Amino acid sequence: MAAEAAAAAVREQAEVVRRLKQDEADPERIAKEVAKLLEMKAQLGGEEGKHKFVLKTPKGTRDYSPKQMAIRERVFTAIINCFKRHGAEVIDTPVFELKETLTGKYGEDSKLIYDLKDQGGELLSLRYDLTVPFARYLAMNKITNIKRYHIAKVYRRDNPAMTRGRYREFYQCDFDIAGQFDPMIPDAECLKIVHEILSDLQLGDFLIKVNDRRILDGMFAVCGVPDSKFRTICSSVDKLDKVPWEEVKNEMVGEKGLSPEAADRIGEYVQLHGGLDLIEQLLQDPKLSQNKLAKEGLGDMKLLFEYLTLFGITGKISFDLSLARGLDYYTGVIYEAVLLQQQNDHVEDPVSVGSVAGGGRYDGLVGMFDPKGRKVPCVGVSIGIERIFSILEQRVEASEEKIRTTETQVLVASAQKKLLEERLKLISELWDAGIKAEILYKKNPKLLNQLQYCEETGIPLVAIVGEQELKDGVVKLRDVATREEVNIRRENLIEEIRMRTSQL
Amino acid sequence: MAAEAAAAAVREQAEVVRRLKQDEADPERIAKEVAKLLEMKAQLGGEEGKHKFVLKTPKGTRDYSPKQMAIRERVFTAIINCFKRHGAEVIDTPVFELKETLTGKYGEDSKLIYDLKDQGGELLSLRYDLTVPFARYLAMNKITNIKRYHIAKVYRRDNPAMTRGRYREFYQCDFDIAGQFDPMIPDAECLKIVHEILSDLQLGDFLIKVNDRRILDGMFAVCGVPDSKFRTICSSVDKLDKVPWEEVKNEMVGEKGLSPEAADRIGEYVQLHGGLDLIEQLLQDPKLSQNKLAKEGLGDMKLLFEYLTLFGITGKISFDLSLARGLDYYTGVIYEAVLLQQQNDHVEDPVSVGSVAGGGRYDGLVGMFDPKGRKVPCVGVSIGIERIFSILEQRVEASEEKIRTTETQVLVASAQKKLLEERLKLISELWDAGIKAEILYKKNPKLLNQLQYCEETGIPLVAIVGEQELKDGVVKLRDVATREEVNIRRENLIEEIRMRTSQL
Repeated sequence: MAAEAAAAAVREQAEVVRRLKQDEADPERIAKEVAKLLEMKAQLGGEEGKHKFVLKTPKGTRDYSPKQMAIRERVFTAIINCFKRHGAEVIDTPVFELKETLTGKYGEDSKLIYDLKDQGGELLSLRYDLTVPFARYLAMNKITNIKRYHIAKVYRRDNPAMTRGRYREFYQCDFDIAGQFDPMIPDAECLKIVHEILSDLQLGDFLIKVNDRRILDGMFAVCGVPDSKFRTICSSVDKLDKVPWEEVKNEMVGEKGLSPEAADRIGEYVQLHGGLDLIEQLLQDPKLSQNKLAKEGLGDMKLLFEYLTLFGITGKISFDLSLARGLDYYTGVIYEAVLLQQQNDHVEDPVSVGSVAGGGRYDGLVGMFDPKGRKVPCVGVSIGIERIFSILEQRVEASEEKIRTTETQVLVASAQKKLLEERLKLISELWDAGIKAEILYKKNPKLLNQLQYCEETGIPLVAIVGEQELKDGVVKLRDVATREEVNIRRENLIEEIRMRTSQL
Repeated sequence: MAAEAAAAAVREQAEVVRRLKQDEADPERIAKEVAKLLEMKAQLGGEEGKHKFVLKTPKGTRDYSPKQMAIRERVFTAIINCFKRHGAEVIDTPVFELKETLTGKYGEDSKLIYDLKDQGGELLSLRYDLTVPFARYLAMNKITNIKRYHIAKVYRRDNPAMTRGRYREFYQCDFDIAGQFDPMIPDAECLKIVHEILSDLQLGDFLIKVNDRRILDGMFAVCGVPDSKFRTICSSVDKLDKVPWEEVKNEMVGEKGLSPEAADRIGEYVQLHGGLDLIEQLLQDPKLSQNKLAKEGLGDMKLLFEYLTLFGITGKISFDLSLARGLDYYTGVIYEAVLLQQQNDHVEDPVSVGSVAGGGRYDGLVGMFDPKGRKVPCVGVSIGIERIFSILEQRVEASEEKIRTTETQVLVASAQKKLLEERLKLISELWDAGIKAEILYKKNPKLLNQLQYCEETGIPLVAIVGEQELKDGVVKLRDVATREEVNIRRENLIEEIRMRTSQL
């Protein structure tokens, strides 16, 4: 637009100069044309100045409109209800932490942390997840026993893929159980929670993959991976949900210097997945069963599956040896929930979504913060609501479902002019009685406009004041959907509105 | 602690050296003592290393414990209910904005903005309030008409005074009405909202001071303040709630170069406060009534008070010519709510709190973001919940009120050993039926410990499984408060729990 306007101005200017040359004798005309030019120049300059200002949110972030917020609230409500059903308390922590609090917790991903500018004082960073702040909170307050949830935004300077729900600012909904307990009981509850939330949100079919860091480490050991390469080989394995085994093997051998034989041995294991049968089979595996770590992990995995059987949820759980998960701090069981496919026929372009929840056991993290290194065993799960939200938003769009963004029960309207004072008096009574009510901010709004506002925003009732109603001590109550109107005595109005809107 | 340990070690070391000298002949003993010294040194070194790590939240910030969160939720619920009662939608914006979005909006306070480190890409700052992001949102989405609330944290590198509820990270609860409407109707609603929220929260007596930027500017003009000094004299006036007039006058004359006569004229006006009477009086004031801006402002103030009379809230509203408010962007009516004093006898040390809400009209802010400068008139109010929260927290502490931090309805317990599986089966049924339930994460917890857990956390019911109950197809349901126990048939348990906890 600006470029076009500039080009047009240049053409116009050339035309003016041409005309000026033709008509040198007329000073008034020259003055007029010059004024015109100056005005044009001012306009252009003004526009250019304005256009320098970029009107946007930062890269990888977004606003939530009222409609999006209504969908977001539904998701939060389902998740919070589940966390409360499991007896969790709630905490909150600051959006930024001392930089050193985050240092050394995220391995390679540390480069994605947002730092604050040094403006004097402490060096600060935006939180990268809710787990490290939770561990810092436990150590700082010497808490050895808590079950809490925390729903808040976290920050990662990642490459955003916003259509797929990957943002630089995004919500995490975390549930964690900290404390020294008998094995796998809290771990099983975390998986039950993921199962409840994903079922409740009706996102279609899902699968929860489960593994254990000790089984992975034991497997690497018996396959001949040197200790020093455990972490890097682990992060290669982590890619198996996106790329085929051959590629992962090439990375292990070519880039990371693993022997092809070791890689092949890993390849045999990581393609295994199943349930209790597979666990039993691996407990008999001549190599794995000789490894102390793997044996511990497999023993706990068996116990976990027994508990999950009691919960009746093993149908959606898969013990999967290829599940690795990136973060450094996991020490035991790890899990990740993935949506299998969109099952909603209304959606024309199903969004490709992967992991929607993940977590695991991290028994060493709190000890990293404790001055005496005292450990507090922890296990938890994080629900990634952005992807879930993307799916639900797209589903709402496709279904043409009308989402109300307010809860207003009644519009206080007037049938004639000069009734603003009466409207204000009535709405004030309604507000004081706890009724959700609105008026149009006009002195003399047309009745039609007032009714139209109700249609647009989904307000179910209109309380209409008019000269006659005021004389009679009544208010005309109109049902927006049926257009039925009845006169209600003013002293009964609040009760009547409550009754009519209680089933909404 | 570390210093004490070091001193003790030095003393111990001297003692060892003394003994070594006495006993030079015994090499075994020397070796032992040296080993002891080395161990002590290692311990000290280790502890020193640990102590370098500071375990804290950043300056001016805090965590919220579950108990604090429970109080915070009460405050939020009251505020959100009020905003919804007035038909507001809700939006959300990112925690940071492009730096340039915030530039030039806050006058002198801009130095308090937190900037993010330049890590490549856009220059970003943490939001300083919710008003500027709201205006950016309106301009960016070309919205000319909305009533919305927004509750979120904002950031200011101010001097924290945390005992008085002043933090660097704090919540704002904003309600704003944007759009071209008839005068003072939305403005009056904002004041009604402040009145409703402060009444609802039962914080004690309060007063809402009201003024208008146009009345202030008109007053400065007729008092002989040069145009160029309006803003700086305005910020002197703003201090009148904290320091006496003489001091403010000295600042105006001494520091800001105003003539003593002009200052005295201002002094006469800013000591005035009242209601409709004062407005009528000033409308007759020979000087003010000649000033176009002041006349406009006083006319609107009269209209506002008429509407507030209809709302029945003028008793707590004071037209106060000393109210100035710092921010640059206000263009019309401004207001600020202050708590007058603590009226709760339970509180031994009443916290000194000042302003708990503030706001006003800002008709020019959206236009600063619009490429074509299109204006969207706005008026709004911001509730400062940190101070409110401080008061309520202190009140809860003093009253010894026991606040539950979970909503658990029932603990699934066992009377004998080896019943973990039965507990897991039962709790799974309860969760699936939407009952809020917990178990202890122990294989064989003692019944006493299970009952004690209920007492501590306020769980009202215990569902006890035992050998006999399993055989009989019943569950023993215990009321924690009355200690009454009855056997309930398993198939009726969910209904019974729902019934018993529905009145809670």
